[in-house]
Amino acid sequence: MLVQTYKDMLGAKSVIRDLAGAAVERGKEIGYENVFDYSLGNPSVPVPQEFTDTMIKLLQETDTLTLHGYSPSLTIPSVREKVAESLERRFGIPYKMQHVFMTSGAAGAIAHAVRLVTEPGDEVLTFAPFFPEYHPYVDLSGAVLKVVPPRFEDFQINFEKAEEMLTEKVMAVLINTPNNPTGVVYSEETLKKLAELLTKKSKEYGHIIYLITDEPYREIVFDNKTAACPSKFYDHSIMCYSFSKSLSIPGERIGYVAINPACAEAETLINMCGQISRGIGHNCPSSIIQLAVAECVDMTADLSVYEKNMNLIYDELKDLGLTIVRPGGTFYIFPKAPEEDAKAFSKKALKYDLILVPADTFGAPGYFRMAYCIDTEKVERSLPVLRKFIKENY
Amino acid sequence: MLVQTYKDMLGAKSVIRDLAGAAVERGKEIGYENVFDYSLGNPSVPVPQEFTDTMIKLLQETDTLTLHGYSPSLTIPSVREKVAESLERRFGIPYKMQHVFMTSGAAGAIAHAVRLVTEPGDEVLTFAPFFPEYHPYVDLSGAVLKVVPPRFEDFQINFEKAEEMLTEKVMAVLINTPNNPTGVVYSEETLKKLAELLTKKSKEYGHIIYLITDEPYREIVFDNKTAACPSKFYDHSIMCYSFSKSLSIPGERIGYVAINPACAEAETLINMCGQISRGIGHNCPSSIIQLAVAECVDMTADLSVYEKNMNLIYDELKDLGLTIVRPGGTFYIFPKAPEEDAKAFSKKALKYDLILVPADTFGAPGYFRMAYCIDTEKVERSLPVLRKFIKENY
Repeated sequence: MLVQTYKDMLGAKSVIRDLAGAAVERGKEIGYENVFDYSLGNPSVPVPQEFTDTMIKLLQETDTLTLHGYSPSLTIPSVREKVAESLERRFGIPYKMQHVFMTSGAAGAIAHAVRLVTEPGDEVLTFAPFFPEYHPYVDLSGAVLKVVPPRFEDFQINFEKAEEMLTEKVMAVLINTPNNPTGVVYSEETLKKLAELLTKKSKEYGHIIYLITDEPYREIVFDNKTAACPSKFYDHSIMCYSFSKSLSIPGERIGYVAINPACAEAETLINMCGQISRGIGHNCPSSIIQLAVAECVDMTADLSVYEKNMNLIYDELKDLGLTIVRPGGTFYIFPKAPEEDAKAFSKKALKYDLILVPADTFGAPGYFRMAYCIDTEKVERSLPVLRKFIKENY
Repeated sequence: MLVQTYKDMLGAKSVIRDLAGAAVERGKEIGYENVFDYSLGNPSVPVPQEFTDTMIKLLQETDTLTLHGYSPSLTIPSVREKVAESLERRFGIPYKMQHVFMTSGAAGAIAHAVRLVTEPGDEVLTFAPFFPEYHPYVDLSGAVLKVVPPRFEDFQINFEKAEEMLTEKVMAVLINTPNNPTGVVYSEETLKKLAELLTKKSKEYGHIIYLITDEPYREIVFDNKTAACPSKFYDHSIMCYSFSKSLSIPGERIGYVAINPACAEAETLINMCGQISRGIGHNCPSSIIQLAVAECVDMTADLSVYEKNMNLIYDELKDLGLTIVRPGGTFYIFPKAPEEDAKAFSKKALKYDLILVPADTFGAPGYFRMAYCIDTEKVERSLPVLRKFIKENY
C-alpha cells in the first residue's frame, strides 16, 4: 500500500529536521548566533561569483526560447559533453557525452541509478554509517536497502560482513565517499578490495553487481589530497554527482549520472534514464541551471573554511578524550558519544545550546554527527561550551 | 519487469519526435524556414522581459545562500503563498499556502497527483484524444491508464462511454482543458456533468474518485474568453499547472499541484507530495526558478500570435472542406484527415514539406494534429502549400 507508506512517512520524525527546528526556536529566544547549530548539512560558503556572472550573462545574451526551451529527453547535449570532458580530464576515464545524464542533484541521480539496475524486490547494499535518505531513494523504487554494519576503527568498509550480506539478491552496492556522516574518504585499498569482491560475486552469481557511487563531497577533501575515484577501480560503476556542495547551490537541484564507458550497456543505461524520467514526471533539470553549471564545471566555491573548522573541532574533541576518526573531507565529523545512549547525550547538549545529531538513523548508535558548515567564528565560540558540556557531564 | 519496460520504451518510437527529426533533417537540405513544421508543441513567443529582469534582479540582489539554498521539502513557502493568493483571486476558491506544492512542470504535478490517489493496479480514466505522455506518467506509477473514446462532434466528453468505464477500480479521472491535441476548452456544462458523475459514482463505490486537472494551456484561450476552472465544480480536485506555455519557459520545469481546500485531506495530500518527491529523488524544482515565477505568477508572454495562427489555419481548412472543430484555445488544431489512414496522409504531406502529426497515439485514428506555435509569416506561407497538397491528392 504505497499511499499508506507516504502517510506513514509523514508520521516518522526526522531527528535532523527536529533538531534543526529546535535550533531555530531556541534562536528566537537567545539569538540564533548564540545557538551552536551543528545539525544541517547545508553549505555555508558563498556561491562563486563566476556562477552568478554566468547566470546573468546567459539571461542577458541568450535568445530566451533557446535558454528556457525544452531540454532533449537525455538533457542538453552541450552540457553532457562538458561534464564528460571534465571527468575524462580529471580521472582519465574516457567518458563521452553518451555516458552522462543530467539529474536533479545526487538524489535524482541515485533514484535513477537504482531504477536502472534493480527490479522491485532486489537488494541494494550500503555501508553504515550512511545517509538516511538512502532509505526513501531505494525503498520507494521497490528495491530493498540492506545496511552492512560499520567498521568502527576507521569507517572504511567492513568487508567480512559485506561478503556475508552480498547474496545473490544484491544487484547494486551503493557507496558514499567522501562520506556523510563520518567525513571519511575511502582509500584506494578499500575501493580495490570492493571491486575485487564485486567482480568475484558477479561471476559467482552470473549477473553484474553494479557499483553506485554517491560523490557530492568529492571536492571537499582535506590536507591537499584528492579523493580516490571509485569508478577507476570497477567497470560497472554509476557515478552520482551533485553540484550542491561544490558550488553551494543545493536548491538548484543539479547533478548527474555518469556511467563508466567500460560498463556493460553503458549507453543503453543512459538512454533508459530518459525513460525513467518520463515515468516519474521529472523530465530534466532546469535548462538555465544545466547551462550554467556546464560553464562552471571545474570550479568550486572557496571550500577552505570546512577544513579550518574540522581541524578546530577535531583537536578539541581529541583533547577531550572522545573516540574519533579524523575526517578526510566533507563538512561532517562523527565522534563516539561519551555515553552509550547518543540520544540522551544529544538531549543533554541542548541545555548548552549545542545542537548535535545522534546517529541512530545513520546506522551507528552511540555516535553523533556534527555538520560544521557554519562560520569559523561560531565554531571557535562553541568550543569552550563543548568543553564545559563534556566536563560537567562525563 | 521494470528494467525491461524501460528498455522496451527505448524501442518504441514517438511519432511526434520522429516527424520533428525528419523536419530538422529536411531543413538541412532546403533551409528550415522552408519546412512547414507543425510537429512540436514548443512555445514560440519570447519569454516576457519581466521574467528575465526578475531573474537578473534575484541574482544581483539576493544573498547567494538564500537564493540557491535548499527549499523546504514542501517547496518554498513564500512561493506557495503567492500561487495560492493568485488562484484565490482568479477563481474564487480559497486556496492557501498549505494547498499548493511546486513541481517540475505539469509532468511532475501529474506524476505526483497519480501517486497521491492510486495504488498500483488502480485505474485512472482519461478522455481521447489525449496527450500520449499520460501513458508513462500513469503506467510507470503502477496504476493503469484507461482511455474513454472521443466524442467526435465537439471533442467534449463522451459521457455515455465514460459512465460505462467508470468502474469501481477507477480512483482518479484525468482531464486536460484546454486540450492537447484538440484545442477544445471544456464547457461549464461538461465540467458540471462530469462533477455530477464523479459524485454519483464516488457515493456508489464508497470511495472518493479524484479529479486530476491538467491545465498548462489555461492562459491560451481565444475570443476574449477564459477557460472554465474545473476545480470550481468538484471538491476532490487536484489542479496540475505548468508555467511552460504561459511564460514560454518549458525547459525550466516549473509548475504546481493545487488541491481544492474542500477536498478530503487536502493538507495531508500536499504533505504527502513531499514524501513522494523523496521517493523519486526529485525533491524540489530549482529554487531561483521557484522564486522567479512567484514574482510573475499573474503574467504571461504575449500569446496573441497563437490565436492569429489558429484563425488563419482554421479558415483555410474549413474552406478546403475538412471536418474540424474550431479550437477555443492552446496552440493545437485537430482536423480529420481526408482519408481514413492518417499515417498515409501524413506521409503524403511530407512530400510537400508539411509536417502534420497523425493522431493514432492520441487515441483518435484518422485525425491529425497541427501545433501552430510557429511564426505567423510561416503559417501564411504554408497555407497555399496545404491547399495544393489537399487539392492534388483528395
